[in-house]
Amino acid sequence: MDIAAALRRIRPLAWETPVVPLDLPGAPPTHIKIESLQHTGSFKVRGAANRLLKLDAGQRGRGVVAASSGNHGRAVAEVAGRLGIRATVCVPDWVDPVKLRAIDAAGARVVRAGASYDHAEERAAELAAQQGLPSVHPFDDLDVIEGQGTVGLEVARQLPGVEEVIVPLSGGGLVAGIGLAVRDRGIRVVAVSAGRASVMHRSLQAGRPIELPEEETVASALSGGIGLANRNSFALCGQVIDRHVVVDEGDIRSAVRRAFRECRLVVEGGGAVGLAALWSGSYRPRGRAAVVVSGGNIDRHLLAALVTGR
Amino acid sequence: MDIAAALRRIRPLAWETPVVPLDLPGAPPTHIKIESLQHTGSFKVRGAANRLLKLDAGQRGRGVVAASSGNHGRAVAEVAGRLGIRATVCVPDWVDPVKLRAIDAAGARVVRAGASYDHAEERAAELAAQQGLPSVHPFDDLDVIEGQGTVGLEVARQLPGVEEVIVPLSGGGLVAGIGLAVRDRGIRVVAVSAGRASVMHRSLQAGRPIELPEEETVASALSGGIGLANRNSFALCGQVIDRHVVVDEGDIRSAVRRAFRECRLVVEGGGAVGLAALWSGSYRPRGRAAVVVSGGNIDRHLLAALVTGR
Repeated sequence: MDIAAALRRIRPLAWETPVVPLDLPGAPPTHIKIESLQHTGSFKVRGAANRLLKLDAGQRGRGVVAASSGNHGRAVAEVAGRLGIRATVCVPDWVDPVKLRAIDAAGARVVRAGASYDHAEERAAELAAQQGLPSVHPFDDLDVIEGQGTVGLEVARQLPGVEEVIVPLSGGGLVAGIGLAVRDRGIRVVAVSAGRASVMHRSLQAGRPIELPEEETVASALSGGIGLANRNSFALCGQVIDRHVVVDEGDIRSAVRRAFRECRLVVEGGGAVGLAALWSGSYRPRGRAAVVVSGGNIDRHLLAALVTGR
Repeated sequence: MDIAAALRRIRPLAWETPVVPLDLPGAPPTHIKIESLQHTGSFKVRGAANRLLKLDAGQRGRGVVAASSGNHGRAVAEVAGRLGIRATVCVPDWVDPVKLRAIDAAGARVVRAGASYDHAEERAAELAAQQGLPSVHPFDDLDVIEGQGTVGLEVARQLPGVEEVIVPLSGGGLVAGIGLAVRDRGIRVVAVSAGRASVMHRSLQAGRPIELPEEETVASALSGGIGLANRNSFALCGQVIDRHVVVDEGDIRSAVRRAFRECRLVVEGGGAVGLAALWSGSYRPRGRAAVVVSGGNIDRHLLAALVTGR
C-alpha cells in the first residue's frame, strides 16, 4: 500500500480539505478536518478516484459497478463521469434523495435494489459477475482504502505534532486507510460509531464479522453491514484502532445543530459522529487531536428540522 | 499602513481561513475564501483584533466602545474578552439575535440604541466622548482597515496567480483593506453591494458620501450608512475598486441556498453577495479569481426557511 502515491494520483479529482481550530474548553488543541468541503461533499471521492485511476484501459472501457447508500455512489458516479467511464450504482430504497439526484446528475445509471444496503450490495455483485465489470466496493477494497488513507497523510502534514485522529466508523474503509497512513507516526486512531450503525464495533468485539438488523439512524451514511466474508477492512480496523467510542442519536442530532451554529458548517449525521463524541463528553482527547468531519450531504428538510429544534 | 505587521499581530486571535475551489462552468479557476469559518464567524475579528492590540495600556484600562449591526460588535466583544478589556457595544433594535447573544456571552455590555444603525453609531460616539473611551469604528478606522486587509494578504499567499478578488461591500472597511493589500500585486478588486444596502456604491457614483433611507434586506450585515463625515473608507474605496456589481434580494437568497446545497457552507446574506454576483451571472471573472464569503452568522430560522424554499 502506497498512500503517498495515492495522494499524488487523486489530486486532480480530490482536493486537500482545510483544517480549522475547534474550541473545546479544557481540552488539548483540537482541529476539524473538513471533508464535508471535499469535492462531492464527502471523503468518498478519494477512494473512488484511486480505484478508478488504477484500472487499466480495458477495464475502464467496460464500465464499473458500485453499491452505495449514497456518498460512495455519488463519488463513483462523479469520478467515472470525469474519466469517461460508464458507471452503474445500486442503491437501497431509502437512499437520501440529495445523493440520489447527484448520482443521476453525474450521468451514472441508478438501480434501486431493495429495502436494505445488503440488497444493494448483492445486486452490484450480481451485475459485476454477469457482465464481467470491475466492482468498486465502498470499504472492503484495498485501492479504496488506500485512497481514503490520503486523509491521514494530509492531517499529519497540515497539523504537525497531532497525536490522535478521531474518525467516523462504518464499514471501516476510512478508519483503516487513515490508520495505515498514520500508525508509523505514533498518531492514535479513535474510531466513533453511531449506536444504531455499529456493526463493525460489535464485530470487533465478537472477534469476527457479524450481522445486525439495519436500524434507522440520523447517521444513515454509516448504515449497512460489513459483510460476513469481509476480506480487508475488518482485519485492518482490528489492527489500527486504539480506542472505540459509540454515540447515540441525540448526541449526533445535537452535533449537527452545533456544527451549524458554532462552526457554520453543514454536516450530515454520519459525518458528525466525531464531533458528537467530543461535544457529548463521551470522549476527551488526551493530546493534540484532529476530528474528521467526513461528509456534508444532508437533506435540506432534515437540516432545517435539526437547526430549528423541530 | 503595514498589513503584513497586522497579520503577525492578529494571528493569535484570528486564524488563516481556508480556500476551496468553486466550480463555475466556463469561468477561469475560482476559489472561495471562507471567512465564515473565521473565529466569531466573520472577518470582523481581524480589524477588531488589530485595533485593540494597538491600544496602549492606559487606553486598554479604560475600556472601549463600538457600534455594530452585529458581526463587528461580536468581534470587538470577543477580542476585548480575550484581552481583558471592558467593551460596550451599541446595537440597532433590529440586531440579529444570534449576534446579540454572542456579544452578551463574550461579556460585553450591550446598549440598544434605536431603530437604525445610525442611532447606534451616534450613541457610541456620545459614550466615547462622555467617558473618554477609544471608539472602535466598524469600517472608518485605519487600524480596523489594516486588520481587514489581512484577508487580501492571505488570498495572495494561498492562491498564487490570482488575478481578481470579489469582495462584499458595505461601509468599505473590508474592500479598502483588501484593496490596499493587493493593489501592488496587480490583483483587481471587484466590490459587490446588496441593492438594498448600496450607500457606498451610490456615494462613489455621487462623488461624495450621501445618506439613504435604511431598507430591510436579507443581507442585514451590509446595512447602515457610511457617515456624511466619512474620513477614510470612502476615499480608499474610490481608489481601490476596479469594478462594481450590485445584486438583488433574490440573487442573495438563492446564493445562501446554493452555498448550503453545493458547498455545504453556512453563509449569511451579507456574506453571500459575492457568490450571488457569480451565480446570478451579474459578474463573470476575467481571470483566476477569489470570492470572499465574509460571514456565516445567520439566524437558524432564516436559514431553514431559505434552504427549504419557504
